[in-house]
Amino acid sequence: MKVALVGATGYGGVELIRLLHNHPVFELNAIYSHSKGGESIRSYYPHLSGAVELIMDDIDPEKIKAKSDLVFLAVPAGISRDWSKKLRDAGLKVVDLSGDFRLEDVEDYRKWYKKDPIAKEELEGVVFGLADIVKDEIRNAAFISNPGCYPTASVLGLYPLAKNKMIVRNSIVIDAKSGVTGAGRGASVANLFSEIDENLKIYKVNTHQHTPEIEQQLNRWDPEIGMITFETHLIPMNRGIMATEYVDLKSPITAEELHKLYMDTYKDVKFVRVRPLGEFPSTKEVQGSNYCDIGVSVNERTGKAVIVSVIDNLVKGAAGQAIQNANIWTGLDEAEGLDLLPMYP
Amino acid sequence: MKVALVGATGYGGVELIRLLHNHPVFELNAIYSHSKGGESIRSYYPHLSGAVELIMDDIDPEKIKAKSDLVFLAVPAGISRDWSKKLRDAGLKVVDLSGDFRLEDVEDYRKWYKKDPIAKEELEGVVFGLADIVKDEIRNAAFISNPGCYPTASVLGLYPLAKNKMIVRNSIVIDAKSGVTGAGRGASVANLFSEIDENLKIYKVNTHQHTPEIEQQLNRWDPEIGMITFETHLIPMNRGIMATEYVDLKSPITAEELHKLYMDTYKDVKFVRVRPLGEFPSTKEVQGSNYCDIGVSVNERTGKAVIVSVIDNLVKGAAGQAIQNANIWTGLDEAEGLDLLPMYP
Amino acid sequence: MKVALVGATGYGGVELIRLLHNHPVFELNAIYSHSKGGESIRSYYPHLSGAVELIMDDIDPEKIKAKSDLVFLAVPAGISRDWSKKLRDAGLKVVDLSGDFRLEDVEDYRKWYKKDPIAKEELEGVVFGLADIVKDEIRNAAFISNPGCYPTASVLGLYPLAKNKMIVRNSIVIDAKSGVTGAGRGASVANLFSEIDENLKIYKVNTHQHTPEIEQQLNRWDPEIGMITFETHLIPMNRGIMATEYVDLKSPITAEELHKLYMDTYKDVKFVRVRPLGEFPSTKEVQGSNYCDIGVSVNERTGKAVIVSVIDNLVKGAAGQAIQNANIWTGLDEAEGLDLLPMYP
Amino acid sequence: MKVALVGATGYGGVELIRLLHNHPVFELNAIYSHSKGGESIRSYYPHLSGAVELIMDDIDPEKIKAKSDLVFLAVPAGISRDWSKKLRDAGLKVVDLSGDFRLEDVEDYRKWYKKDPIAKEELEGVVFGLADIVKDEIRNAAFISNPGCYPTASVLGLYPLAKNKMIVRNSIVIDAKSGVTGAGRGASVANLFSEIDENLKIYKVNTHQHTPEIEQQLNRWDPEIGMITFETHLIPMNRGIMATEYVDLKSPITAEELHKLYMDTYKDVKFVRVRPLGEFPSTKEVQGSNYCDIGVSVNERTGKAVIVSVIDNLVKGAAGQAIQNANIWTGLDEAEGLDLLPMYP
Repeated sequence: MKVALVGATGYGGVELIRLLHNHPVFELNAIYSHSKGGESIRSYYPHLSGAVELIMDDIDPEKIKAKSDLVFLAVPAGISRDWSKKLRDAGLKVVDLSGDFRLEDVEDYRKWYKKDPIAKEELEGVVFGLADIVKDEIRNAAFISNPGCYPTASVLGLYPLAKNKMIVRNSIVIDAKSGVTGAGRGASVANLFSEIDENLKIYKVNTHQHTPEIEQQLNRWDPEIGMITFETHLIPMNRGIMATEYVDLKSPITAEELHKLYMDTYKDVKFVRVRPLGEFPSTKEVQGSNYCDIGVSVNERTGKAVIVSVIDNLVKGAAGQAIQNANIWTGLDEAEGLDLLPMYP
Repeated sequence: MKVALVGATGYGGVELIRLLHNHPVFELNAIYSHSKGGESIRSYYPHLSGAVELIMDDIDPEKIKAKSDLVFLAVPAGISRDWSKKLRDAGLKVVDLSGDFRLEDVEDYRKWYKKDPIAKEELEGVVFGLADIVKDEIRNAAFISNPGCYPTASVLGLYPLAKNKMIVRNSIVIDAKSGVTGAGRGASVANLFSEIDENLKIYKVNTHQHTPEIEQQLNRWDPEIGMITFETHLIPMNRGIMATEYVDLKSPITAEELHKLYMDTYKDVKFVRVRPLGEFPSTKEVQGSNYCDIGVSVNERTGKAVIVSVIDNLVKGAAGQAIQNANIWTGLDEAEGLDLLPMYP
Repeated sequence: MKVALVGATGYGGVELIRLLHNHPVFELNAIYSHSKGGESIRSYYPHLSGAVELIMDDIDPEKIKAKSDLVFLAVPAGISRDWSKKLRDAGLKVVDLSGDFRLEDVEDYRKWYKKDPIAKEELEGVVFGLADIVKDEIRNAAFISNPGCYPTASVLGLYPLAKNKMIVRNSIVIDAKSGVTGAGRGASVANLFSEIDENLKIYKVNTHQHTPEIEQQLNRWDPEIGMITFETHLIPMNRGIMATEYVDLKSPITAEELHKLYMDTYKDVKFVRVRPLGEFPSTKEVQGSNYCDIGVSVNERTGKAVIVSVIDNLVKGAAGQAIQNANIWTGLDEAEGLDLLPMYP
Repeated sequence: MKVALVGATGYGGVELIRLLHNHPVFELNAIYSHSKGGESIRSYYPHLSGAVELIMDDIDPEKIKAKSDLVFLAVPAGISRDWSKKLRDAGLKVVDLSGDFRLEDVEDYRKWYKKDPIAKEELEGVVFGLADIVKDEIRNAAFISNPGCYPTASVLGLYPLAKNKMIVRNSIVIDAKSGVTGAGRGASVANLFSEIDENLKIYKVNTHQHTPEIEQQLNRWDPEIGMITFETHLIPMNRGIMATEYVDLKSPITAEELHKLYMDTYKDVKFVRVRPLGEFPSTKEVQGSNYCDIGVSVNERTGKAVIVSVIDNLVKGAAGQAIQNANIWTGLDEAEGLDLLPMYP
C-alpha cells in the first residue's frame, strides 16, 4: 500500500520516515511540505543520505491521491485543519498528528490553543486514535486524529482506574516530564543546547493545551472524574515522556489489588507493558519503541495511588501510534512495522 | 577561624572545599577521612591540583581539636553518629551533613533509614539548621544538623503556606527531581553514564528517607498538615533539585494573594528569591549558588496551589547551607563566602 | 537458522539481541553467560520485558551445538579465546567480538593487551571481518574475528588512501572520540554519570590496544604505512565514534580528486556513505544504524588530507558488523536485518 | 575602580558579570547593549534576580566615561571595531573580547573573518593579551585584545615547544574540541538541544578563523613554525575546550625531558597547571575556573609529542582572561577575583 507523508521536516515527520522504512506493507512513496517543495529531505536530514532520497513536493491533494492511498499528516496545529479537509475531500485516508481534531468541545480548542477552532460538524467520524484501547472505533473511522504525546502516556496510565470509576473527582495530579524533541525543530533561544543541558524547567504552568485532551478521555470512561492538575517539565534528554500520576481513590486498595487490576486490563494489549509489582519503568527502557510501560504503587500512608507511565514521545507519542492506527484502520496486524525492541542504552 | 572537614572524598565534601576556598573568615586547615588517611585529596580530585594540596588524615578528635575549632562532618548516615559524639566530646563545634540527627522521632529513623537510631537524649541541643528560617535557634545551638537536599527545597517551598496553616491535611504531593550528584560517588552500575544519560527514572517510590524529615518540619508549623506523598526522580544532569509541590488549600486564594504571601514571608531572606508572578525558576538558574528560587501559581480550575522550588543540591542542599549555618552560629554574616552568582550556563 | 548468543549482559550483547529481533533469517533461540546462568536477561535489561524473556544458561558447547548452528561470542578479551576454541571444536560457526583473535602478531597482543596471547596456529583460518571490504575472505572463513570499534571507523576512513599507497610513512594521526557505551557496563567511579557528564577526557594516551589492530590492517594494503599516532577521547554521550584522521600524502591532491577517489572506492559498498564534498557527518547521523559515514577534505595550506569517519560503536563497531559478517558467511544478503535508518534525533 | 560592560547579553558578557561580582577592586557599575538599551539584564538572565538588577543602557562613550574607567567590550567581531575606537577616544581603557584586533596581518582578517578589516594603524599599541605569558607587554598596553578561546588553549599548550624552537615546520596538528557555549546565544536550528545532545560534530573544517591567530602567536616565538592544521569539534557539553596537539620535534626527546621543560616553563605561572607525568586533565577539572591545565607525552613509536591542554572557554577562554588582563594592566595582582576552584562535578 502506498502511503504519503505531508510535513516531513519536523521530528515527528522524520520519525515516520524511520519507522515506515521497515514497514512490510506500507510503502512511503512521496513526501510533501507546505513550504519546502522541491527540496530534498536529505538536505534537512543528512542521516537519510543514500537511504531515503525523496524530494519534497508542494501539497496538492489531487496529486497526492494519484500516488498514494493514505496520508500521515504531520504539520502544526492550525495548519493541519485545512489540509485535512482537502486531503479527505480528495478521497484519501488521513491520520492527522496535530491537535486540531482532538477536542470534541471546540471552545476548549479556542481557549487552550488560542486559535480559531474547526466547525463542530467537521468532527463527525473523527476517531481519537488511542490505539491500544479503541481498536474497534479505529476500524470504522472516517478520519483518525492521533493522540498527543502527554495524553497518550497519561491516559494509558490512568485508564484502568478511570474505566472502573475508582477515582475521586478532581483529585488527579499528573506531573509530566518530557524530552526536548517534543518542542520541535524551530530555532529558539530557549531550546538551545546551552539553555537546556544541565537544566530542568517547568513550562506552560497550568496552561498546557494537552490538559483538556486528557480530561476528555478520562471523562469518557467516568464523567465524575472532572478536572485534572497537569504540569509539564522539560528534561535534558532528547526522547521520552514520564507521567507520574497521583490519584485519590474512592475506596482503599492494596498495591497487589491495584497491580492485578492493571495486569488484567492490559493482559491482551501488546504495546502496554505493566511491570511486576515494585518495578518502575524508566524512559530509556522504551526508547525508539512503541511501548508504553507502566509501574503502579499505593502510598500506604496517604492512600494515594501513584502510577508511572513512560513512552518515547516520538514513537508511541507520535509516529509509532500513527502507524499503529493506520495498521488497524487498514486491517493489518496492529504491530506491523512496530515490533522493535527499545534501543538501550 | 580554623575549620576542619571530616569526610572529604564525597561530592558534598569537595563542594565544601570549593566554597571554603573563598571564605574570608573560615580557613580550612585540615581534612580527614575514615578510610583514606595519608592520601592526598588531589589524588581523588585532580581539579584541586596546585590549589588545595592537603593530605587527608585519620579521624582523631583530639588532634582535630588541636588544629581547628569547627568541623564540617560529611560522612554517610550511620557513620556520622559516632564521630559526631566524639567530636563534640572533644570540644568541637560540629555541623553534621548526614541524616543521623535530623529526625526527632528516633523510630522514624529506624523505619526509613533501616538502621539503628541514636538514643533520644543525644538529640538534646541539636538544631535542624534550616538556615533561612531558624536563625535564632542556630545562634543558640549545641550542634547543627544540616538539612537534607530534598527537604531544603521542599520545606522552603511550602513554609509560607504551612506557617499560615493554610494546607488541607494529608493533601501535599511533592514531585521532586534531582541531578545525579545526589547519589554520591560510589561505583555502581545504576549510576553509570550509559544508564543515566538520556534516561529519566523514578526511584525509592514511597520509601525515600527524606519523607519524614519534610513532614517533621511542616508539622512543626502546623500539626494539622499530617502526611505527604513524596516521590523522587533522577534527572540526567549533575546538579540541581526541583520540587514541584501540589497543595490543597483550606480556603480559595488568588495567584496574586499567594504571590504576595510568599513575597512578604521571604522579603528579608537573602537566599530565597521569590520570582515575579508568572515566572518560574529552572535549576540551572541557581547552579553553584546558595539560592533557593521559588515560583508560585494557583490552578484556577482545580484550586490547587502549585509551587516550584529549586536549589543546587550540593550548595543550598548541602555544603552551602552548612557554611551558612556555621556563619550564623559563629556570629558572622550569614552570607560570608556564599555571595556567589549562579554559574550560567 | 538458529543462532546463539554467548555473553548477553554487556552492551554489545544486548545490542545483538536488539538487532537479531528483527532479522528475517537468524533466530536467536538461546543465550548464555559464563557467570549468570539461570538468570533471566530481563532482570538485567528490563527494556526486554515481554519481548525477549530468555533465561541465560551456562556455557556448554555441546548443548549450544544441539540447539544452534552459529554463535555470536560477546565475552571479554582473555576469556573469549578459550570459549572460541571449545565452540569451534563442537562444530559451531563462531563470530567472536573480542580482541583475542584480531592481531596476527601474537606478541603484539601480549604487549598491548597485557595478557598471554593465543598460540599462533590458532589464528589459522581466522578472518578479520572488516565486512565492507573483505567479503570474499569472509565467505571462506573458518572463524570470524569481528573488528574493534575504533579500528572499524579508522580503517574504513583510510582504506582508499592505503589501498592506493598514497600515505607518507608514519605520518598518520588518528584523533578518535567515543561515546561511553564503549567502556562497557562494569561498575566504576570513572564512568559514573557525574564524572563523565559535562566532561571531556583523553584516556590510554599512546597505549590503546586498538593501535596495532589499525596498523595491521593499513599495512596489509600498503606495508610502507608504518606506525600511527592514535589517541582516544571519551565524549559525554552514549553511542558514536568519530575518527578524525590527519594524513600526509606522497603527492599533492585536490579535494575534488580525493573525494572522487572515495566515491569510486565505496560506490558499491552499501554501508559506507561518502558524503558530498564539503559535508561532514556527525555521529548522531548514524545512530542505531550499520552505516559508516565519511567526509573528506584537503587542508590546502598544509597539504594534509583530513578525513572524518563516524559509526555507531555498538552497531557497525560491534553487533551490526557481527551480523553483517554472519550474513555474508552464511550466504545471505549482507544487509539482512541491518537495513535500519539511523535514529535521529 | 568602576568598570563597565558593553555587550552584556552574550554568554561571555554574563560570565564577566559572574566573575566581577566577587572582584575585590573592580566594581561593575553599568552595563550597555547596542540593541537592548532600557531593558534589564535579569529579563535575559533570570539567574541574576535580586543580585544584579542593572538596566542596560545604550552605548554612549561619553556617558560611559562619566561613570567608569575601564570597559570590557563583549560584542561580536565586526561590531567591536567601531565601538573600540570610540571608547578609546573617550579616554577609556578597553579590554576587547572580539577577534577584531587580534590579527596583525589585516588581510588575514579579511580572509578568515570574511569582513573588512580595520586599518593597520589602528593596531598600534594593541597588545594580544595572552595573560600568562606577556605580562610586561600588558602593563604597557594602549589597548588589550583578549585572545580567542581556542588560541588560548592551543598556544599555552605549545608555548614551551615554540619558545625553544623545537617544532618541525608545518607539522603541528591541533585537534580541538569545544563545549557549545562557544557558539553563543543566537537562535539556530544547528545548536538546538535535540541536534547537539548525543551528537559529535566537526565544523568549519580547515576554515576556522582562529587558525591564523594561533599561527601568529606561535610564529612570534619561532618563525620557522609555519602553518598549522587545525580542526574544531563540537562536544555535547556546555563549557570546556580540549586541544589535543600533535607535534613533530626536530630532535628526539623523552617524555621526562618534555615534562621537565613544561614544568620549568610554567613554574611561576599561577594559572597554568602542568600535570604530573602520565596524568592528563579533563575539561571538567577546570570548569568555572581560570586555569589552563596541561598534560604532556611523547609517543615513543612515532616520535610525536602529544600535548593536551584544557580550559573553560568562558573563563580562561574569555571572561576570566579578560579580567586577568585588566588586573595586570591596572597594576593589581593578576589573580584578583579569579582565585576560584573549579566547580566539580
